[in-house]
Amino acid sequence: MALLEKADCPALLVSNPLNTVYLTGFSDISGCLLVSLAAKPVFFTNFLYQKAAARIKNCRVVVAEGSQDLLSLIARTVKALKIKRLGFEPDNFTYGQYQVLKAKVDGCGLKLAAVKGFVEKLRMIKEPRELKLIKKSVEITRLALTYAGQIHSQIATEKDLVIEIERFLRLKGDSEIAFNTIVASGGNTVFPHHFSNHTQISNKFFLIDLGSKYYGYCADLTRVFFWGKMPILFKRIYDTVRKSQAAAIKKIKDGARACDVDLAARRIIEKQGWGKYFGHGLGHGIGLAVHEEPRLNSKNTAVLKEGMVVTVEPAVYFKNQFGIRIEDMVLVKKNHSEVLSGDIHR
Amino acid sequence: MALLEKADCPALLVSNPLNTVYLTGFSDISGCLLVSLAAKPVFFTNFLYQKAAARIKNCRVVVAEGSQDLLSLIARTVKALKIKRLGFEPDNFTYGQYQVLKAKVDGCGLKLAAVKGFVEKLRMIKEPRELKLIKKSVEITRLALTYAGQIHSQIATEKDLVIEIERFLRLKGDSEIAFNTIVASGGNTVFPHHFSNHTQISNKFFLIDLGSKYYGYCADLTRVFFWGKMPILFKRIYDTVRKSQAAAIKKIKDGARACDVDLAARRIIEKQGWGKYFGHGLGHGIGLAVHEEPRLNSKNTAVLKEGMVVTVEPAVYFKNQFGIRIEDMVLVKKNHSEVLSGDIHR
Repeated sequence: MALLEKADCPALLVSNPLNTVYLTGFSDISGCLLVSLAAKPVFFTNFLYQKAAARIKNCRVVVAEGSQDLLSLIARTVKALKIKRLGFEPDNFTYGQYQVLKAKVDGCGLKLAAVKGFVEKLRMIKEPRELKLIKKSVEITRLALTYAGQIHSQIATEKDLVIEIERFLRLKGDSEIAFNTIVASGGNTVFPHHFSNHTQISNKFFLIDLGSKYYGYCADLTRVFFWGKMPILFKRIYDTVRKSQAAAIKKIKDGARACDVDLAARRIIEKQGWGKYFGHGLGHGIGLAVHEEPRLNSKNTAVLKEGMVVTVEPAVYFKNQFGIRIEDMVLVKKNHSEVLSGDIHR
Repeated sequence: MALLEKADCPALLVSNPLNTVYLTGFSDISGCLLVSLAAKPVFFTNFLYQKAAARIKNCRVVVAEGSQDLLSLIARTVKALKIKRLGFEPDNFTYGQYQVLKAKVDGCGLKLAAVKGFVEKLRMIKEPRELKLIKKSVEITRLALTYAGQIHSQIATEKDLVIEIERFLRLKGDSEIAFNTIVASGGNTVFPHHFSNHTQISNKFFLIDLGSKYYGYCADLTRVFFWGKMPILFKRIYDTVRKSQAAAIKKIKDGARACDVDLAARRIIEKQGWGKYFGHGLGHGIGLAVHEEPRLNSKNTAVLKEGMVVTVEPAVYFKNQFGIRIEDMVLVKKNHSEVLSGDIHR
């Protein structure tokens, strides 16, 4: 509320589903949330989520019956509350919705205003309740990685391994899948966003990038799987990527700038002459979204704060040969950082 | 092109991902398509889809490099083509995107115009190429239903059965999941959109509503699983729902009105006094979207055309007891209809 006042935004219509999960605390309901200085929050939903929405604390629930649409209900409520200026989320509100809502509130002196990133900014700092869910999500993801290491030799293709890993993830408690799992075998590891396909699973070397979603909270870890003796170049790159990750993790604490963390990792790789093979940022914030602020890259001068959770994923992609990426999740603390994914290597 | 001219829309920016799949013919690329009378189509995408997009026939591909955003490239192209009026899809374009694009083309005399349902209308009539994929999707879905009938006794909960069915679906060729599978056990069948949970799987009676997505094309079938002798009321309802479905399927052909098909099915159920327990429409169009036009309900006076594919899913939900729904997919033909899902009952 104080933040709404400060932002000169007397009322905000929250339509980004991740933001409504954040504000209501429930990941199994869908709808729009109206927060305002004028009254207690109002959650607009349809009959499918009526029962689930009744659990939201200190919130009035308005349910659309039959073909009654949510925008009509929202317009009616906003008018009744005599709200004069209604913020909305421009990246989660279609032009069509905007036009309809505008027409419905026309003539009552209400102004619609695009308000960007208001809830997203709050979401950057994780509360203890959220950290608990993130840690559970990380734990399940690590179990799935271990499972993949156990079953890979019985699996034919990348896609089949994806299917078995995701089944495993989903059978663990209430876990879902945070994003399409990447299994990249052999040469496919050179593509950071490889789409897993019918490529044979190598019994020597593959990479897995995956994450569980636990009550809405995402994990995102990458591990390299290697059997046998590593060729010299491979070993050198692998060790460099690990060293690069360790340097970044050491740098992370409250007050550090995102770009400086990126630099700490990048320097180690550049020292080996492989800077041009590390073609993406070092990492990203993670929580209800797999990718959220703050981004760890060379341009972001934002300052890390205690309670943020970021991925740290340095990589070296040797064109036409192979790529090595190691990704862990790190919690920003007052004077240091905590690796949530336990160990920082495979 | 002729349609663009007729619609007085010299250029259209297609941002609905299903519409770009439809127009390009590829379900594995993501981006925006510009179709215009001024030049051949332009597909805007990022480096992830560069290779895949090169397969699109008669189309120029523009790739965003690094942080270059698609809207800048679109604005530049539209200006270069001297397009004076650009249609966009208001339900698949955020207010934020609209504002950015508007600012980028400002001062060059270009008008942005919301154009609704242009490609969606074309999508209603399925081409032979599309029917082949839909039929394959239906076939895989039927195999998964058979599989569910075989394994159910070894499965503990609704959610676990969902996971095993979806694994099966994904292991079949290039099939994905069209929507969250519904497994409803016993009393949970009274909720048409039940969210599968940790409810024990009944060894007497459950319902499955699921669909494969094959190269983008969806299936959507519902079957009731029952073991043992049906109680009299249950049997009467089951037979009525089947009769209701058969009546609707008989009515479907080129020229029939959607509402009349709905009425044919509804009458059978109403005759038994159960009209109020059939609380939703009879069905919906299906293709690249699970739910698309034409809707089969009591209000839609639209006329069915040869080549449309619709679901037919009459139901009776007995509050606090059980629900029975049977859903099949039907192709509209010149003088009759064809049930794509083979048999019309379990």
